[in-house]
Amino acid sequence: MKIAIAGAGAMGSRFGLMLHESGNEVILIDQWPDHIKAIRENGLIANFNGETIVAQIPIYAPEEVASLDQEVDLIIALTKANQLDAMFNSIKSLINETTHVICLLNGLGHEDVISKYVAKEQILLGITMWTAGLEGPGKAKLFGTGEVELENIEPAGADFAKKVTEIFTEAGLNAVYSDNVKHSVWRKACVNGTLNGLCTILDCNITDLGTQAVSENMIRTIIHEFATVALKENITLDEEEVYQHVATTFDPNGVGLHHPSMHQDLIKNNRLTEIDYINGAVSRKGQALQIATPYCDFLTSLVHAKEGILKAK
Amino acid sequence: MKIAIAGAGAMGSRFGLMLHESGNEVILIDQWPDHIKAIRENGLIANFNGETIVAQIPIYAPEEVASLDQEVDLIIALTKANQLDAMFNSIKSLINETTHVICLLNGLGHEDVISKYVAKEQILLGITMWTAGLEGPGKAKLFGTGEVELENIEPAGADFAKKVTEIFTEAGLNAVYSDNVKHSVWRKACVNGTLNGLCTILDCNITDLGTQAVSENMIRTIIHEFATVALKENITLDEEEVYQHVATTFDPNGVGLHHPSMHQDLIKNNRLTEIDYINGAVSRKGQALQIATPYCDFLTSLVHAKEGILKAK
Repeated sequence: MKIAIAGAGAMGSRFGLMLHESGNEVILIDQWPDHIKAIRENGLIANFNGETIVAQIPIYAPEEVASLDQEVDLIIALTKANQLDAMFNSIKSLINETTHVICLLNGLGHEDVISKYVAKEQILLGITMWTAGLEGPGKAKLFGTGEVELENIEPAGADFAKKVTEIFTEAGLNAVYSDNVKHSVWRKACVNGTLNGLCTILDCNITDLGTQAVSENMIRTIIHEFATVALKENITLDEEEVYQHVATTFDPNGVGLHHPSMHQDLIKNNRLTEIDYINGAVSRKGQALQIATPYCDFLTSLVHAKEGILKAK
Repeated sequence: MKIAIAGAGAMGSRFGLMLHESGNEVILIDQWPDHIKAIRENGLIANFNGETIVAQIPIYAPEEVASLDQEVDLIIALTKANQLDAMFNSIKSLINETTHVICLLNGLGHEDVISKYVAKEQILLGITMWTAGLEGPGKAKLFGTGEVELENIEPAGADFAKKVTEIFTEAGLNAVYSDNVKHSVWRKACVNGTLNGLCTILDCNITDLGTQAVSENMIRTIIHEFATVALKENITLDEEEVYQHVATTFDPNGVGLHHPSMHQDLIKNNRLTEIDYINGAVSRKGQALQIATPYCDFLTSLVHAKEGILKAK
């Protein structure tokens, strides 16, 4: 299958590498000049569970794509949320009436952006539990195991979604064809919508958040806002189950001593966050539906205020 | 007049000194051992607008008061909010049926605590715009000017409140007998209820808060919650006027470059905050009245979480 990775950062490098190694025709698209230069000169170098793999995979900046005169079967969207629209605007020449897009970004509402570029029948949604890191330009660190859950968002996309499931699984990506991927996307958004914003604003790790007496009520209130809005999209979240799922992350012997990605983005690296695509998305959906989402509203504002104070870019 | 200062920190030292200098019989009560020791050995030493004043004023720890066999005409409450109840429990031997108490603490609901120790007819409420600092044990720094606004909370207290107004004014404290001190208390609580919690959670000064695009909506929402609850206590806050009043603090040529006291307490000194007597008080009152106060609830929880994370004491 001819596959474009739209956003070849850490996770995009994992998908690109594993799909390339299993025999697909992969191109990488990324906007980081040093990363492009390194991969063109040395290949994509991965520390893959301790083994070094060097893969020669074509990589392009988004603005180079229009001149390629290529179309692809599948685009895997793995940009930062706020770069998704610009990426697809740059790479729309890859898309024809049979091209499918699978969105693997965290957060909510990305299919609305993607549907500006392809019909809904050509959109798949997924979540991934894989992890990935970049050690520098062109150097990926890919350890551990994970899985992907995916589904078409319209019935017409089912056959292609099942084909993608097979291809991902052949590549070792452990894909599962879901019967309710939107539920999984919302459930994962609840994890990000509680841990990310709260740990960022409180400047703490997940265990520190989880051990505060006041945290349970804050987390449950945010989950309740997500669940109330989700229900209007016919997604039924079991709030107790979701809370217990979030609470498993508090364990200091698990991921508890880590800072969530938003904390790393804003507090460590002074980068703008994805809050508008997590709590901010619930706020906007709530406003449109006349559902009050004050904790999501306030948390979104606090994170934006902190971005401004830290002059994040 | 025989006056006890309950809580002789920076502001209590100002009131104690100025009332002592104008001829009243003042005693100081405070729980800081080094402060007591220094004042007993050297007197209260004040840098009063550049002039050094040394005043020999008796000072006692709260637990020493019971054995004094004294009663007073007026107690001026200037403790930290969370020390008020314990202070009055320790010094109740000072109180007889003619003793009045004036509460000058920031925040809401302190009269409920004080009314455990004296009848409501003996309680006055006030706000002060004076500033004061401590340079160390027994050493006050008292610069600038200010005023006091005060009023009885029950009609029977009016005569005494007017007498206190006179005595304060004779001492140079610029007191005004108010016709609606509760309105002033709530209006000042709106300032503290916005700047204190937000600057603490965002770890920023007042100008930094004020210059963020998202801040106006956060501040207006908090003021709206205060106003909605206040109305149930027959206090009508003009939300626009209060917002503009808060916004005057953003000016970097005024107080804007300062961090509010709660930021100093928690972020700088790792001390527990007074959030339960500001936003937390509005949350409790709102809950009792079945008025939703989500921003006050969330901000109170965030500050408590931060106290826990920083192991504040």
